[in-house]
Amino acid sequence: MKYIGIIGGSGYTGSELLRILATHKEVEVVAVTSRKYEGKKVYQLHPFLKCFYELEFIKPELKYLEKCDLVFTAVPHGEAMNYVPSLVDIGIKVVDLSADYRLSKDVYEKVYGKHTGYIDAVYGLPEIYREKIKKAQLVANPGCYPTGCILSVYPLAEKELIDRVVFDCKSGITGAGVKASDFTHYPNLHEAIVPYKVTNHRHVYEMIQELKCKVYFTPQVYPGSRGILTIAHVFLKDVKEELSEKEIEEIYKKFYAEKPFVRLQESIRLSWVRGSNFCDISIKFDGERVVAISAIDNLVKGASGQAVQNMNLMLGFDEKEGLFTPPLFP
Amino acid sequence: MKYIGIIGGSGYTGSELLRILATHKEVEVVAVTSRKYEGKKVYQLHPFLKCFYELEFIKPELKYLEKCDLVFTAVPHGEAMNYVPSLVDIGIKVVDLSADYRLSKDVYEKVYGKHTGYIDAVYGLPEIYREKIKKAQLVANPGCYPTGCILSVYPLAEKELIDRVVFDCKSGITGAGVKASDFTHYPNLHEAIVPYKVTNHRHVYEMIQELKCKVYFTPQVYPGSRGILTIAHVFLKDVKEELSEKEIEEIYKKFYAEKPFVRLQESIRLSWVRGSNFCDISIKFDGERVVAISAIDNLVKGASGQAVQNMNLMLGFDEKEGLFTPPLFP
Amino acid sequence: MKYIGIIGGSGYTGSELLRILATHKEVEVVAVTSRKYEGKKVYQLHPFLKCFYELEFIKPELKYLEKCDLVFTAVPHGEAMNYVPSLVDIGIKVVDLSADYRLSKDVYEKVYGKHTGYIDAVYGLPEIYREKIKKAQLVANPGCYPTGCILSVYPLAEKELIDRVVFDCKSGITGAGVKASDFTHYPNLHEAIVPYKVTNHRHVYEMIQELKCKVYFTPQVYPGSRGILTIAHVFLKDVKEELSEKEIEEIYKKFYAEKPFVRLQESIRLSWVRGSNFCDISIKFDGERVVAISAIDNLVKGASGQAVQNMNLMLGFDEKEGLFTPPLFP
Amino acid sequence: MKYIGIIGGSGYTGSELLRILATHKEVEVVAVTSRKYEGKKVYQLHPFLKCFYELEFIKPELKYLEKCDLVFTAVPHGEAMNYVPSLVDIGIKVVDLSADYRLSKDVYEKVYGKHTGYIDAVYGLPEIYREKIKKAQLVANPGCYPTGCILSVYPLAEKELIDRVVFDCKSGITGAGVKASDFTHYPNLHEAIVPYKVTNHRHVYEMIQELKCKVYFTPQVYPGSRGILTIAHVFLKDVKEELSEKEIEEIYKKFYAEKPFVRLQESIRLSWVRGSNFCDISIKFDGERVVAISAIDNLVKGASGQAVQNMNLMLGFDEKEGLFTPPLFP
Repeated sequence: MKYIGIIGGSGYTGSELLRILATHKEVEVVAVTSRKYEGKKVYQLHPFLKCFYELEFIKPELKYLEKCDLVFTAVPHGEAMNYVPSLVDIGIKVVDLSADYRLSKDVYEKVYGKHTGYIDAVYGLPEIYREKIKKAQLVANPGCYPTGCILSVYPLAEKELIDRVVFDCKSGITGAGVKASDFTHYPNLHEAIVPYKVTNHRHVYEMIQELKCKVYFTPQVYPGSRGILTIAHVFLKDVKEELSEKEIEEIYKKFYAEKPFVRLQESIRLSWVRGSNFCDISIKFDGERVVAISAIDNLVKGASGQAVQNMNLMLGFDEKEGLFTPPLFP
Repeated sequence: MKYIGIIGGSGYTGSELLRILATHKEVEVVAVTSRKYEGKKVYQLHPFLKCFYELEFIKPELKYLEKCDLVFTAVPHGEAMNYVPSLVDIGIKVVDLSADYRLSKDVYEKVYGKHTGYIDAVYGLPEIYREKIKKAQLVANPGCYPTGCILSVYPLAEKELIDRVVFDCKSGITGAGVKASDFTHYPNLHEAIVPYKVTNHRHVYEMIQELKCKVYFTPQVYPGSRGILTIAHVFLKDVKEELSEKEIEEIYKKFYAEKPFVRLQESIRLSWVRGSNFCDISIKFDGERVVAISAIDNLVKGASGQAVQNMNLMLGFDEKEGLFTPPLFP
Repeated sequence: MKYIGIIGGSGYTGSELLRILATHKEVEVVAVTSRKYEGKKVYQLHPFLKCFYELEFIKPELKYLEKCDLVFTAVPHGEAMNYVPSLVDIGIKVVDLSADYRLSKDVYEKVYGKHTGYIDAVYGLPEIYREKIKKAQLVANPGCYPTGCILSVYPLAEKELIDRVVFDCKSGITGAGVKASDFTHYPNLHEAIVPYKVTNHRHVYEMIQELKCKVYFTPQVYPGSRGILTIAHVFLKDVKEELSEKEIEEIYKKFYAEKPFVRLQESIRLSWVRGSNFCDISIKFDGERVVAISAIDNLVKGASGQAVQNMNLMLGFDEKEGLFTPPLFP
Repeated sequence: MKYIGIIGGSGYTGSELLRILATHKEVEVVAVTSRKYEGKKVYQLHPFLKCFYELEFIKPELKYLEKCDLVFTAVPHGEAMNYVPSLVDIGIKVVDLSADYRLSKDVYEKVYGKHTGYIDAVYGLPEIYREKIKKAQLVANPGCYPTGCILSVYPLAEKELIDRVVFDCKSGITGAGVKASDFTHYPNLHEAIVPYKVTNHRHVYEMIQELKCKVYFTPQVYPGSRGILTIAHVFLKDVKEELSEKEIEEIYKKFYAEKPFVRLQESIRLSWVRGSNFCDISIKFDGERVVAISAIDNLVKGASGQAVQNMNLMLGFDEKEGLFTPPLFP
């Protein structure tokens, strides 16, 4: 039994880690921090977890986390960098769910601003970096949009077939976090598709880093709680004439053959992945444009589930432990 | 052409008044106040009204309102009392959409606290008080829940047939106002029915005042923007044996014969009244319990539409002017 | 390892049984029937189950089910009676999810019509009949509404404290089944609360049978997929003066002390039970009326989860096996 | 007062015509047909229209329509061609809401199949063809998707600035019609974005016809009743370096200067156009890609509202009559 800590247990990624780890057979959560709710029982803030945890929130101080084998940092970007180096220093493995360690230092500072605790990390997309993750001390868990986008076209990008790709993504509202705002106010979202940052969302830099092609990204929220549907409109390089839809599918099948959480489907529904760590993908090709569609649960494969998948690899467990459960359809 | 002012133009009842009055043929809105948005164009805060108003928000000061024939006060309870007496004093007619003038002074102070500007008002439910409203200087627009509840059973209450009634009401989220909060945060409401103040919501006092019987009231919000569905579970006094469902329907038909905004329907859908000033009602009777169901749009018949209906009566217009448009189904 | 069969695998209760049993450690599903989809892979009809089952649908014939230790019948009422007696005859344990064995024969025939295969069954509400269920050959799984209603007030009913109770229930649309109809057509449900059978829904007979008091029941659907929120408006017998809210809570606490799937909560959200087998309950008392509110997932505690809970008891497993997982919030 | 007929009054576009025309001052609806509901009152099928029409549905026979000045054909493609030529023959003006007269005959037959009653029509997009519509005998009302797509980029297309455009569109479910199906079954749509015909939807031919550039179109439904949000990802021809975002906005402003139903907005919400005939458009440009976003109500500007706008022009009324009302926000 390994001991786990969570820095930042009051937000959605924190409570989702708690949800997933509640049935994980190899680990025990021994510390959950929250400045705001220190001293309160975890289930008082998260009543859906009643009967699963008796823990109280504690302050995010190193002394409470020393016994941990691995710590998840589930705090906003800019904050994680205050904890991660010290944890790594004393030999604790870390999966960071923020943006702080996903990009090279110079790109990070161009996009997010000053970085005061940079160290190298492995980009935690196990479908690409499984072997590196196994040996990593620090894993940077990918952003929710990048996970759905990168997986939807990676088999083509890896073969350098892509000229340009337009990612038109629709995310559930939990992506905006647990804090109420005008953006998350129900009457502003009911029966809505709300585009935002249509040409300048920061997640695009992770996509460019991994895909190495021209990327255009437009995010939207849709009226649902969980899920990201990504439609990748892919224009191929000149090689395209030689490819049929069937051949493209073969490229995907080969690439994802040993990746237990990617399923190729004939069509796509968010409800077929909801609550699960799966990324479902379907492909259509009209001779000019590949339409690759992926669906993930933004809080699972897009955040906490992927973090646990990374933890499984880092601690030497079966990659699927605690995660290989059917989605909650319908 | 009469001149109209609106005190409190930034909230939902304010913008709904503007929506309705935009096509009203007898009046012109000449003043809309908002401390917070003073100097901003109305359509900048309410982009859906672009092309309908060139007005700017002004401060809520008496001098800007003097030319008005009638003013709507669309501010929270406790605030309306700061404006209403001065307006009435200088001869301006007022429809107050807050709770400040709906109850007798002693009941108000028991329920809401100190009242610093009490004057008598007519309770603005035109289906009951049409003639009084025509002559009123100040009309207290009913609460949203009381409108749906009272209309659903008034024909029985008026005949003193009711022993007790349980109102189980489901309101759209706009009832909680324009300000974002944990309560209106999308992920707290998606696929939810959220009961609140299940035994102690203040609107019950209006219902008791008008119905004069034992009233039990439990409100909930449902995942929709507009609409209140009221299910009235009515237990009749001993006279019940003598009544059939048909006779009860006759009582309703007779009472609502000349009331243009109440429609008796065989079944009820919120979408059949959405965006309109109608109150649809259906009746079932199982021999012991009358189930009277009503549907209104909480922002129209439950607030701003009813306020305009009251204005029409107070200014001598056709009761239906500006209001008699079909609902937006589906 | 015990062998399990499912008669009726194409509907929501069938696919939900498959979802739950996919991670159950003591059983293996060896037969799933569907006349319509015979020969098709289970995951082709239910793509969300891809990677969990390689089974094909088979015809619902006895010869394919003989090896089973227990069979779930997940077919409509009137159909289950065609299978259940033969299964019981050859010693197979049965959990029937239809209405066919929930009521005494005479009540059944009054309500549903002719019964051609009546045998005695245990009413499968483990919180009341756990010991009987352990020994049963045939368990009649309760209706979804009755589960939420009965559990919400049973501690009071058992002590004969209730004079009358009004159940105002809101169900997710999956309760209407997998087949498309005008009732389940999206534009008829969006932003809607749709009351139906407001005085004459057949589930009331199960409630009367178990609660033995005056029961009034009005169901509605709300715009969500899963979940039943029950508001029980309870009028107590004369003893009520002697009771405080605290004492009522004590009655509930005592009754549910050893029932792992009932949680007493301070407030209620459907999302705090979604995807789980929990029934959350909260209590308020205003001196005259107890408002007891319960929340269940209609497909889990209201159907297939409760069926697995019954199976666990009947086959001698831990009652919680395969079921004690956190809800999917938010 | 002009007399109006509607062939096909039971579907959504039919009932929406009735909704809009109920408050139109220059026309009277004198005939509404439905084979299926012949003899039934219009408001019995459409209870939301109670108090607005006393008409009964009649058979779609020419003799009942002879007195009409203009007839709307609101029937599926392939059916309209059975009525339109005869109506035109006897001098009745026609607005056809089906696809039957939108394309040239050869394109139509390639896409939809045999056309048995082809005659020339004017493509009814008043923002482009206003003067031709005024003189037309037959107007082909555009498809819902083409309306949103074409208007979103027409000012650029007209100047031949576009190299290619990807239209990623999200439509409300009413676009699928009034008939229940698996596609419109609530649990298949809740919290969903459902892509369909991702590379081969027939509406693309209207777009190509009007825009004359490379068009890629992927439709989806989103969980809402009304509304189409179009995101146009536009790649310009080489001229692009010379253009700034401001200059592009100027092109739009100039083109839409005298078009009362197109509003340029800083951001876009479907709820800002819902229930109205407006098409709201916003523009962003990142130096390589123009993201033009449009929002319409698919049943109004995308169908029946635009049809009435066409009628207004054809019968010599003010283009805005009966249509210039504020959207129903929120």
